[in-house]
Amino acid sequence: KINSERLWNTLHETCEWGAEHRYGEKPTDTGMARLALNDDDARVRRWFAAEVQKLGCSLSVDQMGNMFARQSGRLNSAAPMIAMGSHLDTQPRGGRYDGILGIMAALEVLRTMKESGFQTDYDVGVVNWTNEEGARFPKSMCSSGVWAGAIPIQQAWDLRDIHDPSVTLRSELERHGYLGGIACSSDPATGYPLGAHFELHIEQGPILPENNKSIGVVRGAQGYRWLTMTVHGRDAHTGTTPFSARQDPLLASSRMIAASHDIAKRHDALASTGIIRVPSNASTNTVSSQVTFTLDIRHPQDSVVHAVQDKCLNAFEAIALQDGKGVSFDWTLDTDSPAVKFDDNCVASIQAAADQLVGREKSMLMTSGAGHDTVYTSKHCPSAMIFVPCRDGVSHHPTEHCSPQDCALGTQALLEAVVHYDQF
Amino acid sequence: KINSERLWNTLHETCEWGAEHRYGEKPTDTGMARLALNDDDARVRRWFAAEVQKLGCSLSVDQMGNMFARQSGRLNSAAPMIAMGSHLDTQPRGGRYDGILGIMAALEVLRTMKESGFQTDYDVGVVNWTNEEGARFPKSMCSSGVWAGAIPIQQAWDLRDIHDPSVTLRSELERHGYLGGIACSSDPATGYPLGAHFELHIEQGPILPENNKSIGVVRGAQGYRWLTMTVHGRDAHTGTTPFSARQDPLLASSRMIAASHDIAKRHDALASTGIIRVPSNASTNTVSSQVTFTLDIRHPQDSVVHAVQDKCLNAFEAIALQDGKGVSFDWTLDTDSPAVKFDDNCVASIQAAADQLVGREKSMLMTSGAGHDTVYTSKHCPSAMIFVPCRDGVSHHPTEHCSPQDCALGTQALLEAVVHYDQF
Ligand SMILES: NC(=O)NCCC(=O)O
Ligand SMILES: NC(=O)NCCC(=O)O
Repeated sequence: KINSERLWNTLHETCEWGAEHRYGEKPTDTGMARLALNDDDARVRRWFAAEVQKLGCSLSVDQMGNMFARQSGRLNSAAPMIAMGSHLDTQPRGGRYDGILGIMAALEVLRTMKESGFQTDYDVGVVNWTNEEGARFPKSMCSSGVWAGAIPIQQAWDLRDIHDPSVTLRSELERHGYLGGIACSSDPATGYPLGAHFELHIEQGPILPENNKSIGVVRGAQGYRWLTMTVHGRDAHTGTTPFSARQDPLLASSRMIAASHDIAKRHDALASTGIIRVPSNASTNTVSSQVTFTLDIRHPQDSVVHAVQDKCLNAFEAIALQDGKGVSFDWTLDTDSPAVKFDDNCVASIQAAADQLVGREKSMLMTSGAGHDTVYTSKHCPSAMIFVPCRDGVSHHPTEHCSPQDCALGTQALLEAVVHYDQF
Repeated sequence: KINSERLWNTLHETCEWGAEHRYGEKPTDTGMARLALNDDDARVRRWFAAEVQKLGCSLSVDQMGNMFARQSGRLNSAAPMIAMGSHLDTQPRGGRYDGILGIMAALEVLRTMKESGFQTDYDVGVVNWTNEEGARFPKSMCSSGVWAGAIPIQQAWDLRDIHDPSVTLRSELERHGYLGGIACSSDPATGYPLGAHFELHIEQGPILPENNKSIGVVRGAQGYRWLTMTVHGRDAHTGTTPFSARQDPLLASSRMIAASHDIAKRHDALASTGIIRVPSNASTNTVSSQVTFTLDIRHPQDSVVHAVQDKCLNAFEAIALQDGKGVSFDWTLDTDSPAVKFDDNCVASIQAAADQLVGREKSMLMTSGAGHDTVYTSKHCPSAMIFVPCRDGVSHHPTEHCSPQDCALGTQALLEAVVHYDQF
């Protein structure tokens, strides 16, 4: 049985590195700004390295700075370890649980096993994946992506700090001594293969709390495609130009955003616009010449993602002709992340753990709405995830909160699932 | 009869001060960037002062730098002069005709009268209104507004250069020696009253060309109200947050913009959004926390402007509740410019000139879509405007164009209207 007080204290103690954005009176009432490979991230990495070595783990660092801590199993088998992975980096206005809980839970599992003298049959360990957030070096799940062969390492190394282009991800790895010697790969010959990957994470959404469940058994992640639309019109005076003579890209974009929502809703999918931009010299009495906006389409089935995209583009073509003299538009595909189905055996191990801890009524099978490192690991080893609720579904925000009880429950489930899978 | 070649050459020669944004091969194929009270505006002002003095005019400058050139009439009456006014400043990406044509035409009228030995009964003259565009010091029709008592002079003096807040309108008036001694007012005791105000301007819209007319007899200006809407929601992950749990201000704003257009259209009014902004840290996979957008509502009748505003706000309230958990919104009124009806006698003088020059079929009575200095002068002296077509209705753009024929025709109409009004 894990030590929930030790888990809670360790988590908040290590959040001293990077604490920001105070919102309340209590010492822990702050968010985090521990951006990947900044000085605080380097500090928590050094602390993590020392802790796992105290437990007798071996530690390997690969060429993306991913940290692999390994505890030998009873059988002294050469098989790749069963990993519990997540990330220690945060958003610039992030919270104390996203990623961090996953690592602290994994460490608590190792501490509990050591303390109680329990040994798994096969090797088990913890992975800290570098730059999961993509908030400082703009590519999310960047280093699990390189490990999985989905992102070329040179492209990842060359990512520039979004505020200081003179700094690259590689230059920061070098500065902190985290450019390891092992290839960032699942290849047994040169890299660091994993036998399985389990990740505990806060849900970051409202489904668990709304359904009054305490554990999410995550069987996959939905697919998503990110488009940037550019709508072209013509500047015109808002006072002197009749509607019939206009080519108004902001009116058209507005209709497109509303239409994309309505289409997605009819398909039980999601379509969201987070960014819209008019030229910086826009003015109240000028019809804009151009508008860009983003479109993020998601659904657990790729075929539905594609159908929603197609219907949106068809609707946009009709909208482009609808008002005045019409507008034109073009678009780019910025991200294409197909749906992922996690490993049945990993999911079964998590379900078994959940059944034992809370019973069927308090857990639910679900699909992750967001991408996670486990989405990439699942391409090269059996993988699955455990979700625990976070307050009001709020995440990527300083007030992000996961109760001590839910942190402990998720960590116990992680332990049971790993033990179950080890037996299996 | 005015000299159309002299008019054309003078206009383009003086556009050497401030020419920018070349778009073609011909020497005159550029736009203008002669922002109010910059060095080029000061140069063209000095040129204008010298030209009117050569014609024997007296020149007065008021405390807003408005320039009043006055030619004595035959009767040596003490009555205020009949003014032909417009402005020499331009937009930062403006054209060669907006405002400039009105001043050059007025000067050509004086030159023609002088050359042909023609004298009006009453004094006539030209007014160059300072900072009509409001592009550098952000208040349009700023100095005719002070003259009309609608804008306090201190507020106008304190306007700051939008790019360099250390510079004010008053400091630039002082630097160029254009802070005159006369009060900026229509008060006969301290200021510079006018007997009438005629303004020739390009239409800046497509109505004249689309109706194949060459002169617009402008009998008033439509009313307009500028609102800024702020829609409040809550940041949320686009992948993990179901529609039902969202408060999405960008979706709501999109529906509001589309609704405002549709409502205005049903009322034969205009409603336009030129600016929309999301926070600078917006991202593709985050529902924005807040959105602001502008709304510009226009109609020749104030009651319709108000009705459209009311219907929009009602519709916005329904939209705010429509999706997910709903959003809230608030708004500010930034500009309230009621509709203006010009003076019947001034309009009749312009109509008489148009009838004589092109006949009834080639002129049309119309309402100005945009605000002009004449909107303010009309509050304190009989006023009206003449519109001539500009190519494709394009204005506030480097390629803005008015043909030599239309420039000449408008100038001739200005001369005839002033003579007609003088007789009247
Ligand atoms: N967890 C997370 O925010 N991943 C980034 C990619 C996504 O938007 O799903
Ligand atoms: N002519 C002009 O652009 N005036 C500014 C105010 C308006 O938008 O009507």
